[in-house]
Amino acid sequence: MTISPASPTRMPAFGSDNMAGVSPQILEALAACNGGTARSYGADEVSAQLERRFAELFEREVTVLLVTTGTAANTLCLAAATPPWGAVLCHPLSHIENDECGAPEFFTGGAKLVPVDGPLAKIDPEALLVKARDGKGDVHAVQPACVSITQATELGTLYTPDEVAALGAVCRETGLALHMDGSRFANAVAALGVSPAEMSWKVGVDLLSFGATKNGAMGVEAVLSFDPKRAQELALRRKRGGHLTSKMRFLAAQMEAYLADDLWLANAHHANAMADRLGRGLAEVTGVEVQEGAEANILFCKLPDGMAAALLAAGFYFYADRWAPNVVRLVTSFATTAAEVDLFVAAARDFALSPVGGV
Amino acid sequence: MTISPASPTRMPAFGSDNMAGVSPQILEALAACNGGTARSYGADEVSAQLERRFAELFEREVTVLLVTTGTAANTLCLAAATPPWGAVLCHPLSHIENDECGAPEFFTGGAKLVPVDGPLAKIDPEALLVKARDGKGDVHAVQPACVSITQATELGTLYTPDEVAALGAVCRETGLALHMDGSRFANAVAALGVSPAEMSWKVGVDLLSFGATKNGAMGVEAVLSFDPKRAQELALRRKRGGHLTSKMRFLAAQMEAYLADDLWLANAHHANAMADRLGRGLAEVTGVEVQEGAEANILFCKLPDGMAAALLAAGFYFYADRWAPNVVRLVTSFATTAAEVDLFVAAARDFALSPVGGV
Amino acid sequence: MTISPASPTRMPAFGSDNMAGVSPQILEALAACNGGTARSYGADEVSAQLERRFAELFEREVTVLLVTTGTAANTLCLAAATPPWGAVLCHPLSHIENDECGAPEFFTGGAKLVPVDGPLAKIDPEALLVKARDGKGDVHAVQPACVSITQATELGTLYTPDEVAALGAVCRETGLALHMDGSRFANAVAALGVSPAEMSWKVGVDLLSFGATKNGAMGVEAVLSFDPKRAQELALRRKRGGHLTSKMRFLAAQMEAYLADDLWLANAHHANAMADRLGRGLAEVTGVEVQEGAEANILFCKLPDGMAAALLAAGFYFYADRWAPNVVRLVTSFATTAAEVDLFVAAARDFALSPVGGV
Amino acid sequence: MTISPASPTRMPAFGSDNMAGVSPQILEALAACNGGTARSYGADEVSAQLERRFAELFEREVTVLLVTTGTAANTLCLAAATPPWGAVLCHPLSHIENDECGAPEFFTGGAKLVPVDGPLAKIDPEALLVKARDGKGDVHAVQPACVSITQATELGTLYTPDEVAALGAVCRETGLALHMDGSRFANAVAALGVSPAEMSWKVGVDLLSFGATKNGAMGVEAVLSFDPKRAQELALRRKRGGHLTSKMRFLAAQMEAYLADDLWLANAHHANAMADRLGRGLAEVTGVEVQEGAEANILFCKLPDGMAAALLAAGFYFYADRWAPNVVRLVTSFATTAAEVDLFVAAARDFALSPVGGV
Repeated sequence: MTISPASPTRMPAFGSDNMAGVSPQILEALAACNGGTARSYGADEVSAQLERRFAELFEREVTVLLVTTGTAANTLCLAAATPPWGAVLCHPLSHIENDECGAPEFFTGGAKLVPVDGPLAKIDPEALLVKARDGKGDVHAVQPACVSITQATELGTLYTPDEVAALGAVCRETGLALHMDGSRFANAVAALGVSPAEMSWKVGVDLLSFGATKNGAMGVEAVLSFDPKRAQELALRRKRGGHLTSKMRFLAAQMEAYLADDLWLANAHHANAMADRLGRGLAEVTGVEVQEGAEANILFCKLPDGMAAALLAAGFYFYADRWAPNVVRLVTSFATTAAEVDLFVAAARDFALSPVGGV
Repeated sequence: MTISPASPTRMPAFGSDNMAGVSPQILEALAACNGGTARSYGADEVSAQLERRFAELFEREVTVLLVTTGTAANTLCLAAATPPWGAVLCHPLSHIENDECGAPEFFTGGAKLVPVDGPLAKIDPEALLVKARDGKGDVHAVQPACVSITQATELGTLYTPDEVAALGAVCRETGLALHMDGSRFANAVAALGVSPAEMSWKVGVDLLSFGATKNGAMGVEAVLSFDPKRAQELALRRKRGGHLTSKMRFLAAQMEAYLADDLWLANAHHANAMADRLGRGLAEVTGVEVQEGAEANILFCKLPDGMAAALLAAGFYFYADRWAPNVVRLVTSFATTAAEVDLFVAAARDFALSPVGGV
Repeated sequence: MTISPASPTRMPAFGSDNMAGVSPQILEALAACNGGTARSYGADEVSAQLERRFAELFEREVTVLLVTTGTAANTLCLAAATPPWGAVLCHPLSHIENDECGAPEFFTGGAKLVPVDGPLAKIDPEALLVKARDGKGDVHAVQPACVSITQATELGTLYTPDEVAALGAVCRETGLALHMDGSRFANAVAALGVSPAEMSWKVGVDLLSFGATKNGAMGVEAVLSFDPKRAQELALRRKRGGHLTSKMRFLAAQMEAYLADDLWLANAHHANAMADRLGRGLAEVTGVEVQEGAEANILFCKLPDGMAAALLAAGFYFYADRWAPNVVRLVTSFATTAAEVDLFVAAARDFALSPVGGV
Repeated sequence: MTISPASPTRMPAFGSDNMAGVSPQILEALAACNGGTARSYGADEVSAQLERRFAELFEREVTVLLVTTGTAANTLCLAAATPPWGAVLCHPLSHIENDECGAPEFFTGGAKLVPVDGPLAKIDPEALLVKARDGKGDVHAVQPACVSITQATELGTLYTPDEVAALGAVCRETGLALHMDGSRFANAVAALGVSPAEMSWKVGVDLLSFGATKNGAMGVEAVLSFDPKRAQELALRRKRGGHLTSKMRFLAAQMEAYLADDLWLANAHHANAMADRLGRGLAEVTGVEVQEGAEANILFCKLPDGMAAALLAAGFYFYADRWAPNVVRLVTSFATTAAEVDLFVAAARDFALSPVGGV
């Protein structure tokens, strides 16, 4: 369904932050922990260390489970918070609703995802209150059990701490759990200048999918539960889902390096800055409309007729045909360079000046 | 439940082959593929190359899906071959029956694992024929759908190609699929001196979990289907199970390096040789009974009273309390050295000579 | 959530057709088949006879499975037509989407219900075509597998045979199965004056939930499959879902009596006529707006302020608070009498003439 | 798989107690409650009355949910007591293990049934203690969560209250729930001369499948929970499983009539007496070995060569080929007559005296 250039690796690629490679520090950490034997399944010393690291970072005890994909992280959280007859309330644009091939339904044992709308890919708290009460106690209806929000959102927008707190308050009032899909949690925290605690449990988040893969790791995400009572269930669900890695030290080493010296924040700041540079550059190109509200590393733009095709034909890589006509999504990463951004902006400008000849 | 030494990494560890690290060639491959961007979810060039590699190795077209854990590989295969009302026939000692926290039941949607016994952890073909017909067409009974065998087995024994062919014949006759849990497929192939094809589809295997993690990879296993009609279902099940890795090139690179220059066979030959050396050494220690039949990299021994505790107290690492009294399991890996083996044998000999003083 | 009178049985009740009792002929059939022993689980003679009866009625071979609830009938059909990673396309007002507590998700193993809109509770074929192609082959998306329509709809409206055929054509074109929730199939067939065949397989229906309970039976519905290849899977799913009744002759006897002498059509004609009488009567009451388009035995009306509460307080029974303000649903059944209808219309008229004093 | 006579209804049938019809009092109750309308889904007056009736019968508050099949009753209980990663400990001969097509696995979301042996189809408490602790807290193992026993057992034997109490004590000690499959609870209570309370919650039973269908009802079973906290989950699971009957008054009426005037005990006493008469009669036939220990309405016998086939050929109906050679199962019901028993015994005697000529 997507228009794909032949060799995506040569020219700048803005398809997704998961097209980037791995931060050098993380690659080094993998090599560094390779010596000798280590106990498997998370009983190693690197893993033990990591739980302390997260406790410091989040300023409280927290259950930590490493997995290799964001789908796994999200679905474990949702399954721990939602019985099979439950409803997960989420935004209609959310990844769990659109892009997981039904993984949340699988891991929960058949719960239902119920969309709750709101502007800029963010759930509206008043709409949430209505849906959170819908069908409660009626045996014919699925029972609202969990709210899942994405931070940063699928549109690159951000919930402020107050906005999360407002949703958290609805959850407390109606007895629902609050899950945050934080596959781009770093980008959000970096952009907002808040602490991890201020963006999670302090505003009512019960379960956090703490992403690392999109922001420089090779393949590791952390399920964080701020309620220790969920620890055992999460561990069993992880194993049962095939997500308990045997050579766990290599996941732990990635995450350790990701957190050490605030690499995670540095990477996120850089990706955000590149998106900002891209947005400012494109805003000055005639005919390009840059979506407002994006503050992280995702940018949606409406391009003039023909520009998307021309840029793709020139070898740039991005998704162009999933939304409205001429609407494209551009994603930057820790590895995106200013030169790549400028090259793209220049190509867009060239097309705008001379659409017939192309880029 | 296990007696664990304080620092398992210092002294030789025979707990499991998943306690070993990663082959240097595989670590290098990770670094080598890190440059630039690549399409995610397996649309990269390394992944494309890999399908060809497997086709050559197995001498035919084969569907390849990479995942990060053996549980994932096994359960995807079982789910593709077994409807929710189906039965998976497997040995009572099999990993899928005992050590997956119900993952096969989860991925199949609630199918039933039905034990079929046989000596040396291998399914007996006559017993299989009875169970394969049991309840067929009776709506009150689960319907036999799939046979799963482990090669090398959980006891370190091996099915010969003829033995697999005998089970394969039962499967064909009764309409069942044949799955091979090959988390130690390399050890089996190396020990038997057969080709991958001779140990799989040529003797009736439909689905193969081709392991790499235990034999030198960091975390990658391949689901191989010799029936191309299963490809799409497997791909959807992988995504839905949270096992579709975004930065897939790093799984593909591991597997590519694992297969290149027959590293996989070299690693397996070495691990097998170390187990052989260990077995021969221990067989000469007074009071030690080495289990017969093991030909791969797993060794079960019955030790004299007190020896297991003494060796564990001395810092060696292995599992000692899961089976009969004084029975221990020793597993070697690609990284096990002859010196480690000899150190262990010497410690056992010392204890045998002077049990009171200990090791 | 509903305003319920204390004694619903004294005054006319229009809450649902499942508030009615059982047709005398069906009660008699239960008594008539009670003598002696009979083989259980559907191997009895009454059950055997029934399959022939349905074949005649539908003018072709058809697989018949009896169950006791409409939820069971619908979910078995959906599960047989939809893999766990599939999508069931249905109207946003459909019963399976709103009133089954997630039963379709449970029986399918976690498939997703995807709403497709259209006026009068009927799916629009053009909207269906778009959704039927959505995500096909994309591993990140659930795969459209089945379309489910309700006939008569939840609003009491009807699909004409041509309208069903248009949806059936989309299903054929896109490879989807077409399921009809016919819990009020009799009312639809009676109102439209078509044959069962013309309203099902001749217009593309693959699986039909053929309802009887709402139209005079005690508790029996038939799953009808026009594809004999689904028979065995349906039988296994029925058992596994706990829906294989042991004393099946008593389900078969109900259904036999329901079909004999066209009792099912007579009952449906009567219920429809009562709804028509009710609609015509209420249409003449000042301030009452009767919904257009209803042709079966369900009627939605908008009442003037205060009328619903007054009628409920007077002892009439119906649902009043689930939709927009002052909107009520009135359902008639085979057992509704003209006197009951007239009593209700008269009470409404009295209120309209003198709202203060009430009914 | 079974040898079935052409006309099972003419000659005495001992195939199962579910081959019998319905007690006249229960048929009458169905007719008696047919007048007028009633609220659906259990909100009717007959249903309300029933909860009080059960409270009196069991001498305490109890949650009551009616369903139409024993499979539904058992699986709802197991699902409420067992998480998807849990193990249900049950006897290898139990119905839930052998005859439900995996329904327990389906309703629990993939839990595992783990056999625990013991003589006469009864779980041995010491074996139970071992299995109840097996794998607890080990993330690789399914977690024991529930024990399920059958009373009367599949062999027609009985647990004494003390025997149940011993299992109940193990459950309490290890944190497991105790479920009783009481599809023949009446036969057990009648045979033992104990009260329902003495055979359930007083000896540690948490969840009881209280059967009625096999003992004279048309199709109704009660899920009884002695822990009110399970009520809401059970209600949601029942709906989600398609087991919430709309015209519930007809289930309630059956159960009400079943309990009224101790019809349930009278029916059970009669069935038990018929089995006793049958056993005593057959014990005197040369070559027939009657299984010891049966006290309810099921009898296993070993017949001399050829006798089973001869009796089946003569038109008697029973299961003969599911166990060891020449072993048959004979089941009596509330409707079995002494004449039928005597006819069967006489036929057996005739064959024993003159095997060549047959019956």
